[in-house]
Amino acid sequence: MYSLNVREHFMIAHSFKGEIFGPAQGLHGATYLVDMEMRRPKLDDDGLVVDIGLASQSLAAVLADLNFKNLDEVPEFEGKNTTTEFLAAIIFERIATLIKTGDLGPAAKGLTALKVTLHESHIAWAAFEGELTNDAS
Amino acid sequence: MYSLNVREHFMIAHSFKGEIFGPAQGLHGATYLVDMEMRRPKLDDDGLVVDIGLASQSLAAVLADLNFKNLDEVPEFEGKNTTTEFLAAIIFERIATLIKTGDLGPAAKGLTALKVTLHESHIAWAAFEGELTNDAS
Amino acid sequence: MYSLNVREHFMIAHSFKGEIFGPAQGLHGATYLVDMEMRRPKLDDDGLVVDIGLASQSLAAVLADLNFKNLDEVPEFEGKNTTTEFLAAIIFERIATLIKTGDLGPAAKGLTALKVTLHESHIAWAAFEGELTNDAS
Amino acid sequence: MYSLNVREHFMIAHSFKGEIFGPAQGLHGATYLVDMEMRRPKLDDDGLVVDIGLASQSLAAVLADLNFKNLDEVPEFEGKNTTTEFLAAIIFERIATLIKTGDLGPAAKGLTALKVTLHESHIAWAAFEGELTNDAS
Amino acid sequence: MYSLNVREHFMIAHSFKGEIFGPAQGLHGATYLVDMEMRRPKLDDDGLVVDIGLASQSLAAVLADLNFKNLDEVPEFEGKNTTTEFLAAIIFERIATLIKTGDLGPAAKGLTALKVTLHESHIAWAAFEGELTNDAS
Amino acid sequence: MYSLNVREHFMIAHSFKGEIFGPAQGLHGATYLVDMEMRRPKLDDDGLVVDIGLASQSLAAVLADLNFKNLDEVPEFEGKNTTTEFLAAIIFERIATLIKTGDLGPAAKGLTALKVTLHESHIAWAAFEGELTNDAS
Repeated sequence: MYSLNVREHFMIAHSFKGEIFGPAQGLHGATYLVDMEMRRPKLDDDGLVVDIGLASQSLAAVLADLNFKNLDEVPEFEGKNTTTEFLAAIIFERIATLIKTGDLGPAAKGLTALKVTLHESHIAWAAFEGELTNDAS
Repeated sequence: MYSLNVREHFMIAHSFKGEIFGPAQGLHGATYLVDMEMRRPKLDDDGLVVDIGLASQSLAAVLADLNFKNLDEVPEFEGKNTTTEFLAAIIFERIATLIKTGDLGPAAKGLTALKVTLHESHIAWAAFEGELTNDAS
Repeated sequence: MYSLNVREHFMIAHSFKGEIFGPAQGLHGATYLVDMEMRRPKLDDDGLVVDIGLASQSLAAVLADLNFKNLDEVPEFEGKNTTTEFLAAIIFERIATLIKTGDLGPAAKGLTALKVTLHESHIAWAAFEGELTNDAS
Repeated sequence: MYSLNVREHFMIAHSFKGEIFGPAQGLHGATYLVDMEMRRPKLDDDGLVVDIGLASQSLAAVLADLNFKNLDEVPEFEGKNTTTEFLAAIIFERIATLIKTGDLGPAAKGLTALKVTLHESHIAWAAFEGELTNDAS
Repeated sequence: MYSLNVREHFMIAHSFKGEIFGPAQGLHGATYLVDMEMRRPKLDDDGLVVDIGLASQSLAAVLADLNFKNLDEVPEFEGKNTTTEFLAAIIFERIATLIKTGDLGPAAKGLTALKVTLHESHIAWAAFEGELTNDAS
Repeated sequence: MYSLNVREHFMIAHSFKGEIFGPAQGLHGATYLVDMEMRRPKLDDDGLVVDIGLASQSLAAVLADLNFKNLDEVPEFEGKNTTTEFLAAIIFERIATLIKTGDLGPAAKGLTALKVTLHESHIAWAAFEGELTNDAS
C-alpha cells in the first residue's frame, strides 16, 4: 500500500458549548496544521500516488473556505461543536468530494483511502480516516 | 474512524540484560515522549473522541508512576528488559484499565482501539497498539 | 553565557485592523507555542539557570491570563493589533515583572536577558528579546 | 501489535519525465528522511521488536547504495520516475530482502509487516507498507 | 529587539570539488528548509516587523530562482562549492537587496538585521546573518 | 557571520541533590539531543564553516564518553548537579579543547564561537555558548 501526505495550515476562531469544555466555552481560536494522507495499492502511470501539485491546491482550496473565519458564524456548523475531530471529518468529506469530481486529476480516482489529521498544538491532534468509494453512481 | 492524540513525557533510569544490548547494559536512562492515540468510529454527544482534559490527566497519572524512577528497582519489572517497546505495552495496559474503570469519563467507553508510542530520541521510537474490549464482565 | 528554555502554548481569538492584513481582518484565531528563554552568565548554587518548575509555572500563569480569550475584548489591547510580535513583547514584559517580584525564586535575580518566541504555525514565528534590569529601585 | 521505528537520511539528484512534473522535469535533488517501521505481534526473548543496532545498520547499508547518487544514472531505475513513493517501495523491497537473508538477526524473522516513509520536505512525505512473508520457500 | 521568521523550502542538485567532500563529490542533491529571520528594534505602525505576506512572497521569489536547478550549471556559482553555508549567504544577499529596493514594502526599511538558515537534514543546518544597511546611497 | 550546526544524542542516568529538585532527587535519566553550533566570520577555502564529517565525529566522540553512563558515578562530576545547563558547559569545554588540538581539522582554527544546546524533552532545553580563543599559548 502506497501513501502520500501533504501539509497545510489554517487559523480560525470558535467557541464550544458544554460544561465539559471548561474555559474553552469562551470565544478563542486555533492554528490547525493539516496533514492530508492519500492511499492506493498501486501507483499511476507517472509513478505517483497523485499529482502532488493538484493535491496541495485542492487542500488549500478546502482550507481557504475556513481560514480566517469565526466558525461560530458559519451556518453549516450551527448547533455543532467544531472540535478538532469534528473538523477533521468535515475536511475529509470535502476532499473526498473533490476527488470524486476530478479536482485532483483523473488518476486520483485510483485512491482507495484518505486520512485527515489536524494538529491543534505540539501536544494534541485528531484525525478522521476512511475508505474512498470512487466508483461513480 | 476518528482518533485523538495527546503527548506527554517522562524520564527514567534503567539497564538491560543481554549481550545484544552492548553498552546499554550499563545503568543509563531516557526521556520518553509518549503519544497516546485513542480511536472510535463515532464521536460522543459533545463531538469528542474523549474529554481531552481527562485524557491528559489520565496519561499524566500513569506516567507519574514511572517518572523519575530507576526501573531496575521497580518490583513489577524484575527479570524484564524495560525496552521502549516493552514500556509502550505496559503503559497501554494501564491506560486500558483506566478506560474500563471510567477514569476517562463515561463517554470513553466508546473507544475501540488504543495506541501508545514512546519516542526515545529524534531517531528512534516504538509503539504498542490494540483493540479495546470495553464490554464489562 | 547559559540559557534555559521552556515551552508552553495558548489559544486565542482576535482580528486585525489595516488593509495590509487582508483576510486576517476578520475574526479568526491562533494556537501560539511559546518558548521562554532565560539567560545568565553564571549558574546559581544548585547548578541552574533558574528553577525549571517555577519557570514553567510562571510562564503558565502569564499565559493563563490570555488563554481561551478573544483579545479584541481585552481592554489593555484596545486600539492595538495583537500581532504575534506584539504579543511576544507583552509576554516578555509580564515575565520580566514576575522575575523582579521574585515569582521565579530569589536565584532568578541573576538572570540578565530574556527572549520570548511565539510560533503561530509550522512556518511562521516571532520573538521579542531584551536585557533584564534586576537591580531593584 | 508492536512496532519499532528508526530514522536515517540520504541525499540524491534526479529528474522526472512527464509534463505533470512541471519544473521538476529539470535535474534537481532531495534530502530524504527515511523512517523504517517494523511490526510484530510479540516481542522476542530479549523484549525487542528487533535489535535496534542491526536495524539501523541495515537501513544505513540500504541507503548508502543510493546516497550521493544521481538516480538518473542508476541502471536499475532506467525508464522510471524515481518519485518519493517509488523510492519508498524500492527501499521497502531491499530491507525485506535483508530481513529474509538474516541481516537483521535471527529474531527479525518474527517481523510480520514493514513500512518505509520518505520525507522530501517539512510539508510532503510518502510511504510504502506491506506484510512480510518470512516463511522461506 | 523584535524578530519575525518565515519558512520555505527548495530542492536542488549539485556536486562539490575537493577531497574533503568524499562521496559528496558526486552529483547529488538536497532539500533545503529555509528560515528567514528579520530583526528590528521597534515595530512599524501596524504592529509588525514586516508584512508577513510580502516577506513570504519575497523569500519564495528568491528561492524560485534556485528551485529545481542543478547548481553546477548556474554561471554565477562557477568555481564555487555551493555548500549549505555558501547558499545561506547567497540568499541573504538577495533578500537584503530586495529589502533595499522596497520589495518587502516601505516599512521593511526599518529592518536592522537578517539571518538566513538552511536545514539540509534533520541533523545538520547552516546560517548566515548580518546587519542591514538600509540607508540608501 | 556564518554558523553550522550538527545534531547528535546521548542517554544517561543521574540524580540531583537539593530540595529544589523535588522528585528529580531520585535516580532517573534523560535522552539529550545535542546541537553543536560553530561560528566564524568567513568560510574556509573549501567554502565551509568546518568539515561537517569531522565535526560530527568529534561531537560523537565527546558524547561517547558520557553515553550509557550513570553520571553519579563519574568522578569528575562528584559533588556537582549534572543539570542540563551544567552538561552543556561540560560538552562545550570538551569540544573547545578538540578544536584547539586540531581534531576538527586545521581550518577549524578559524572558528570564533561555539554554542552547545541540550534538549532534555520536547518542552525544555538549555545551552552554553561562548567565544573561542584559538590563538595557542
